[in-house]
Amino acid sequence: MKSWVQIPKNSDFTIYNLPFGIFKNKRLSPRIGMAIGDKIVDLHILHQEGFFSSMHLADDTFLQDSLNGFIALGKPITRKVREVVQQLLLEDNSALKDHRARGKVMVNRKEAVMLMPVKVGDYTDFYSSKEHATNVGTMFRDPENALMPNWKHLPVGYHGRASSIVPSGTPIHRPKGQFKDPDADRPSFGPSKCLDFELEVAFITGKNTKMGERIKTEEAEDSIFGLVLFNDWSARDIQAWEYVPLGPFLGKSFASSVSPWVVTIEALEPFRTGSPSPEEDLLPYLQCEKDHSFDINLEVFIQPKEAKETQVCRSNYKYLYWNIAQQLAHQTVNGCNINVGDMYASGTISGPTEDSFGSMLELAWKGTRPLRLDCGAERSFIEDGDTVKMRGYAEKDDVRVGFGEVCTEVIPSNGKD
Amino acid sequence: MKSWVQIPKNSDFTIYNLPFGIFKNKRLSPRIGMAIGDKIVDLHILHQEGFFSSMHLADDTFLQDSLNGFIALGKPITRKVREVVQQLLLEDNSALKDHRARGKVMVNRKEAVMLMPVKVGDYTDFYSSKEHATNVGTMFRDPENALMPNWKHLPVGYHGRASSIVPSGTPIHRPKGQFKDPDADRPSFGPSKCLDFELEVAFITGKNTKMGERIKTEEAEDSIFGLVLFNDWSARDIQAWEYVPLGPFLGKSFASSVSPWVVTIEALEPFRTGSPSPEEDLLPYLQCEKDHSFDINLEVFIQPKEAKETQVCRSNYKYLYWNIAQQLAHQTVNGCNINVGDMYASGTISGPTEDSFGSMLELAWKGTRPLRLDCGAERSFIEDGDTVKMRGYAEKDDVRVGFGEVCTEVIPSNGKD
Repeated sequence: MKSWVQIPKNSDFTIYNLPFGIFKNKRLSPRIGMAIGDKIVDLHILHQEGFFSSMHLADDTFLQDSLNGFIALGKPITRKVREVVQQLLLEDNSALKDHRARGKVMVNRKEAVMLMPVKVGDYTDFYSSKEHATNVGTMFRDPENALMPNWKHLPVGYHGRASSIVPSGTPIHRPKGQFKDPDADRPSFGPSKCLDFELEVAFITGKNTKMGERIKTEEAEDSIFGLVLFNDWSARDIQAWEYVPLGPFLGKSFASSVSPWVVTIEALEPFRTGSPSPEEDLLPYLQCEKDHSFDINLEVFIQPKEAKETQVCRSNYKYLYWNIAQQLAHQTVNGCNINVGDMYASGTISGPTEDSFGSMLELAWKGTRPLRLDCGAERSFIEDGDTVKMRGYAEKDDVRVGFGEVCTEVIPSNGKD
Repeated sequence: MKSWVQIPKNSDFTIYNLPFGIFKNKRLSPRIGMAIGDKIVDLHILHQEGFFSSMHLADDTFLQDSLNGFIALGKPITRKVREVVQQLLLEDNSALKDHRARGKVMVNRKEAVMLMPVKVGDYTDFYSSKEHATNVGTMFRDPENALMPNWKHLPVGYHGRASSIVPSGTPIHRPKGQFKDPDADRPSFGPSKCLDFELEVAFITGKNTKMGERIKTEEAEDSIFGLVLFNDWSARDIQAWEYVPLGPFLGKSFASSVSPWVVTIEALEPFRTGSPSPEEDLLPYLQCEKDHSFDINLEVFIQPKEAKETQVCRSNYKYLYWNIAQQLAHQTVNGCNINVGDMYASGTISGPTEDSFGSMLELAWKGTRPLRLDCGAERSFIEDGDTVKMRGYAEKDDVRVGFGEVCTEVIPSNGKD
């Protein structure tokens, strides 16, 4: 497929992708758009001009500050909208290309501000990378028994804080909190000394269920709208002191950052792939007949203030041991209800090699082997003024489908005490 | 104070209380009301009749399906509304008593259906009862070191699932899930065999903060609108197998039940009391100058199908080691933002005596000493068909302020597999 929109080489936003997001700019109030090359298709204007007239959509379908209502219309509608736009953008299609409103419909991406794509009701963080769980277990517990007995029997997960999930571009404050130095008798208080990123990908649910219902693995993807990059910021020192016995809390709740463009399952279809073979017999509700993973390259960069970025990690989504169908089947097997716009993050996606680890904790191995950045600086964790960028893209046979980036500057803690 | 409304003896809903809730009935769409005796004051009708005319409230202020928007108006407004209604209900005040619309304003509580009082954005569950944490630590870990090293230094807490919080009266399905019997090699799957209640009280926040901001202990109550009873349903077998290392997940996320009437901090003022003395020096951000607890009697009853209820627990809110000011200061000390309508549950409130333990796990001591109910049946955990009722009230010098109840029937799991 080729579009009449000029697509820069290596753009994540090809005609094969067409992700959905919420944007605004100086002129325009928040609305739903689709990214293509360096442009955004303003779906509200497109609708006003009658391009969706056969679909009987409400006038304000796209004039929204979140995708929730649109996603709730269901996949037959959201898929159709994507297909209509894809057709309109094809090289040979002149309906939009030669339309008097083309200039209004095609907005410059550079001039747009991207907002949170969804209002997140509930947010779950899984722990689905075997390599990551093994690395953490090796560092903090027992190298001989790095994985807990439950790990290969269920996708371990926990609930996270939804209020502090912010879109790419939102600076985050270094969190303060309690931590206990290994040789101290008592905890102390101050800005975290071990601020870390976690390279994750999150899926967004597209249906509501009732309490008592469950979603089976084979139905799960019908309930998943799309995926975003997810930086699960972590304060390792706060987390280490607080997390026994009830899990991570303030070490995580200060912020998580997401990429603003939701890449649909449909766009990822060409990159579908299997997951690692289960190493234990799975209970029936976690068994899958089909592939539910995707071959997505993932990258992390650190950019200190006034320096160039250095790539510190190259990983891949396909390394995950537990897939999205298993995660959603597990989440709902107890009858927990889900809602449109919920976010389910993968957990840190580490690969088998040392340069594929998805956190500073692992890359610098608990501070024992600091990374040297291209500018000469060393990092064991993230410093104030650093910007962390995560990028993700799938590529195959000249088809590229990418996520853009989630890019976050760390700023100092607020206040004196 | 005495009201012209007849208040049954031992009613929780005296003129001193006047809690807020969301109700509907066959005639009326969801709206905000206040409970008094066996009546509900329909605040929307009261507003239509001009009783709040000096306050310049929007026409639909009370015609809402949650309290969030009303609470967000701020304490000066919500307090004033409560004071206006309190005045109108006083014996000597004839403004409403003799008003032609009195019949429309005063709705029968029996004919009303109570809905969730707030739309919960985020939900945190603390673990603030020393007796409960000690009991659990003794049963599952080490009686000599029942409390974890962090427990006396910070109010341990974790994030819970907001989507499955339901109001009193909503039946809940027994959850299914994975558990591993102690002598089994592998986990098995089925309906939980150890379904438990947890007697808790939750506070509801009344302000939004920005990320990076914090709330100090001395400011905390300004950001708390009121309290509800909270039954934190727990499947002990599912929880035991899943919770290491990231905390409770499916063992909790299937349901939590709340009482529908939000009792304001103002109504609880006469019952304010201190908390147990800290047994460790606290970091400054957790220190309090004032009392932030309340003397509230708490009771749990089990009612098997077609039998009478048996009281199984009498506890008190004042037993909590960590108070609401400390909980909110801790929640926000890392810069985590809060929103109006967030819910923060206390954790199981156990007292010092065996009949004051707030869960079946503790009352029947892990099944080793089943409770005998008045009908002759024995219980180690909750059975299908059982209704669990929690009640709470404060009483002093003939002033009674109560929560009503949170009352939930357990129904069998859905489906065959």
